[in-house]
Amino acid sequence: MTQRASGPFSKGHGTGNDFVLVADPEGAHPLSAARVRELADRRFGVGGDGVIRAVPAGSTGDAVLDALPAGTWAMDYWNADGSLSEMCGNGVRVFVRFLLESGLAELPEGGALDVATRAGLKRVVRRGGLLSADLGPFELGGTRLVASAGLDVPRPGQDVSTGNPHVVVALASEEELAGLDLHRAPALEPAADDGANVEFVVPGTIADGVGSIRMRVHERGVGETLSCGTGAVAAAMATRHWSGDAADRWIVDVPGGRLEVELDDRGHVWLTGPAEIVFRGETLSPVP
Amino acid sequence: MTQRASGPFSKGHGTGNDFVLVADPEGAHPLSAARVRELADRRFGVGGDGVIRAVPAGSTGDAVLDALPAGTWAMDYWNADGSLSEMCGNGVRVFVRFLLESGLAELPEGGALDVATRAGLKRVVRRGGLLSADLGPFELGGTRLVASAGLDVPRPGQDVSTGNPHVVVALASEEELAGLDLHRAPALEPAADDGANVEFVVPGTIADGVGSIRMRVHERGVGETLSCGTGAVAAAMATRHWSGDAADRWIVDVPGGRLEVELDDRGHVWLTGPAEIVFRGETLSPVP
Repeated sequence: MTQRASGPFSKGHGTGNDFVLVADPEGAHPLSAARVRELADRRFGVGGDGVIRAVPAGSTGDAVLDALPAGTWAMDYWNADGSLSEMCGNGVRVFVRFLLESGLAELPEGGALDVATRAGLKRVVRRGGLLSADLGPFELGGTRLVASAGLDVPRPGQDVSTGNPHVVVALASEEELAGLDLHRAPALEPAADDGANVEFVVPGTIADGVGSIRMRVHERGVGETLSCGTGAVAAAMATRHWSGDAADRWIVDVPGGRLEVELDDRGHVWLTGPAEIVFRGETLSPVP
Repeated sequence: MTQRASGPFSKGHGTGNDFVLVADPEGAHPLSAARVRELADRRFGVGGDGVIRAVPAGSTGDAVLDALPAGTWAMDYWNADGSLSEMCGNGVRVFVRFLLESGLAELPEGGALDVATRAGLKRVVRRGGLLSADLGPFELGGTRLVASAGLDVPRPGQDVSTGNPHVVVALASEEELAGLDLHRAPALEPAADDGANVEFVVPGTIADGVGSIRMRVHERGVGETLSCGTGAVAAAMATRHWSGDAADRWIVDVPGGRLEVELDDRGHVWLTGPAEIVFRGETLSPVP
């Protein structure tokens, strides 16, 4: 082997939402937008929807993260385009899996781990093989019209805020869902100030207090993705609203797999699902 | 670290055409279509246009490869969809870089290494930091009309065979090239029996015996890609034909970088360009 190794990393995903993860226990290796873009590039780099650095709060170099309790692991999350992000529902679950796989933290079955994010502390618990994250409260907003290629006419959409903005549209059938062309962003009327993620859902049955929906999502600035954690939350809570609050637990099938959304009695929404580390590696210099 | 490592691999690319590479010096670990699809998946696996196993000819388990001279490294190439492929112009260059990086072969500057492929032995030479592959002879065919989204009217296309079928279309300007919508396959009239890769080129200048072109490619069954080695060869040789054989060396700029195509005095075409290993890793079980 030649001696060009420069940086160890892991690659993981939650229902197809994928991330490059690096450990920086000393806070000595801050990320840069350029390095994030290199790492996130799917052909010239490692590839991912985002890049996450695990670094102790207090040593991150980020004022928001460093204000959180020392001793917690901070999730320094960057989008693939090099911009910063406050939170990511699948990302925080994959982040905790990475901490566990790397021996940086322990989380016994049923135990809880608090993670420092730019949106504050987020709690993650372990439920069997799955990881569950408390994404906090949500808020229902007004309605607006959503037009998309593949829809005959614009449909009413429900605004839902989960910290980031969503518009949720109910469709009549699986066929209608499958027939959407999400290569282009759906059009919103009125337009959302900062754009919005748009979730299209087909409500299924509700039985024994558990509802089910199938969903596709168009993420603002990204396009259609296999999964969006906060999108699953928004889709479930909009459908719950339409159902007359008939259930607090929702199974959400996204193209990348199955998530579960649950509203607890404090009004917080929990996102549960698989979170896997797929491989470990080291980039070779010249980077990447 | 948990002890789940199952398989070491490398990831490399040539002008953005990317591959997962595994070494199998004993011929003990044949690939399967399912394993290739897992590894090539960009979100649930490692991600790549193809998966390549390095295995000594005679030990591959593949009758075509095992008929080639013992002592040569065989390139057991699979497409991302799990189908077998005979050859890949960027793939064979990245394959040799992998052999060098892994210490499995040596190739001094100017030296040559023969690689066993399903299309026979292919010679690769080292030229500075670049690797150059002899892709053998090419053949000009007839013409057919090509229609594509973004083109005002169908244009004549030149058939070129490089072992696999290509149709090359000359455009008038960079603007026309940039304006193509290659989300859908171009339409061929008459249709090609087994489909064809379609290269759109803007011819540039010819000076000192060196021509230049800019190209975009739609690969059959795949879509637009950042690069296609045999496509660059076809594009250069069609442009050479249109120029009245005015040059034997062609610089081909593809979205993923720069390739060079050269016709030697035996009528063989050489493809030269960068070939890099980006990272090494190991997949974790359960696979991938």
